[in-house]
Amino acid sequence: MADRGILIVLSGPSGVGKGTVRKAIFEDESNDFAYSISMTTRAKREGEVEGKDYFFRSKEEFEALIESGGLLEYAEYVGNYYGTPLQYVEDTLASGRDVFLEIEVQGALQVREKMPEGIYIFLSPPDLMELKSRIIGRGTDDMAVIEKRMEMAIAEIEMMSLYDYAVKNDKVEKAVSKIKGIIKSEHLKVSRVLEHYKTMIEEM
Amino acid sequence: MADRGILIVLSGPSGVGKGTVRKAIFEDESNDFAYSISMTTRAKREGEVEGKDYFFRSKEEFEALIESGGLLEYAEYVGNYYGTPLQYVEDTLASGRDVFLEIEVQGALQVREKMPEGIYIFLSPPDLMELKSRIIGRGTDDMAVIEKRMEMAIAEIEMMSLYDYAVKNDKVEKAVSKIKGIIKSEHLKVSRVLEHYKTMIEEM
Repeated sequence: MADRGILIVLSGPSGVGKGTVRKAIFEDESNDFAYSISMTTRAKREGEVEGKDYFFRSKEEFEALIESGGLLEYAEYVGNYYGTPLQYVEDTLASGRDVFLEIEVQGALQVREKMPEGIYIFLSPPDLMELKSRIIGRGTDDMAVIEKRMEMAIAEIEMMSLYDYAVKNDKVEKAVSKIKGIIKSEHLKVSRVLEHYKTMIEEM
Repeated sequence: MADRGILIVLSGPSGVGKGTVRKAIFEDESNDFAYSISMTTRAKREGEVEGKDYFFRSKEEFEALIESGGLLEYAEYVGNYYGTPLQYVEDTLASGRDVFLEIEVQGALQVREKMPEGIYIFLSPPDLMELKSRIIGRGTDDMAVIEKRMEMAIAEIEMMSLYDYAVKNDKVEKAVSKIKGIIKSEHLKVSRVLEHYKTMIEEM
């Protein structure tokens, strides 16, 4: 009997560098988790490979999947659909392998509703951590600037509060090492290990 | 404003090697967490240093501390008291440093009631992980032996279920590295980081 794999969701504000961090994680071949490939209705670009870069589908096929509940999350962006096929994620987790998703905040919240047992990691801009100095500024800013910064910071913190872990993306290697550490530790959680023993004892 | 430190409790069945793992963790001087020194009423042995090996106290002093709620946990063992002074743990956590406790299972459960926000790590015997083969044995055991093993395994699993993480003590270095990873990841938990931001925003 294999333990069920863990769903790992990496997300964060746009422009924070999610894609770069994800690529660096998958460059290390010692990882044994699977990367979930997105499905899209946009046209295939030169050099892109079906089933590697994306699963390319027609609008009709995509909408049929939405109807049948076959997507873990999806969004429309400049006239095209983007989404995560549920079947692949389910099958891979059931086989005992972890699945890694790198998606936008809205998508992450959709996934969390369906799979609350996953690990939700918020990649945060480095300067969020220097919040106070950023908001107060260098003493020359007027009230409007300070208020704008305050609003943005509060919005980011509210976003963060929906996640399990927050990793600052100051240096890619440091963020990667933290994310790998989180995944390793999550595998040591009693709540995950216990299920394994209970099933084993019941079987005997 | 410093973040509050995290209380880390390492425990597990007696004889599993808690002391060895704890010593190996503290040999690495890059750790910045504090080791909580126990208090005891037993006589000081040759070479032992007050405030380093133990806080040595009279029975009357110890019982006065029990009365006033000054112990995080305590137990009596062959006529002597052993316990963890609360004040030191509280002060160190408040100053932003993590505190590491290595204690018996009964003590860990007492601590958990008072400080549920701590991290509770169960050090498990390596063979618990090979449960099935251990219980079924080599096919030559009689029913009584199998049942005895089954009982022990179930007791260990029930113990484990009261903890957050389970670390197998197969090799000391591996267990140490897992425990350090857990502590690092716990510092990235949104629930711990968020408090910091909320206070900061309220202050501004």
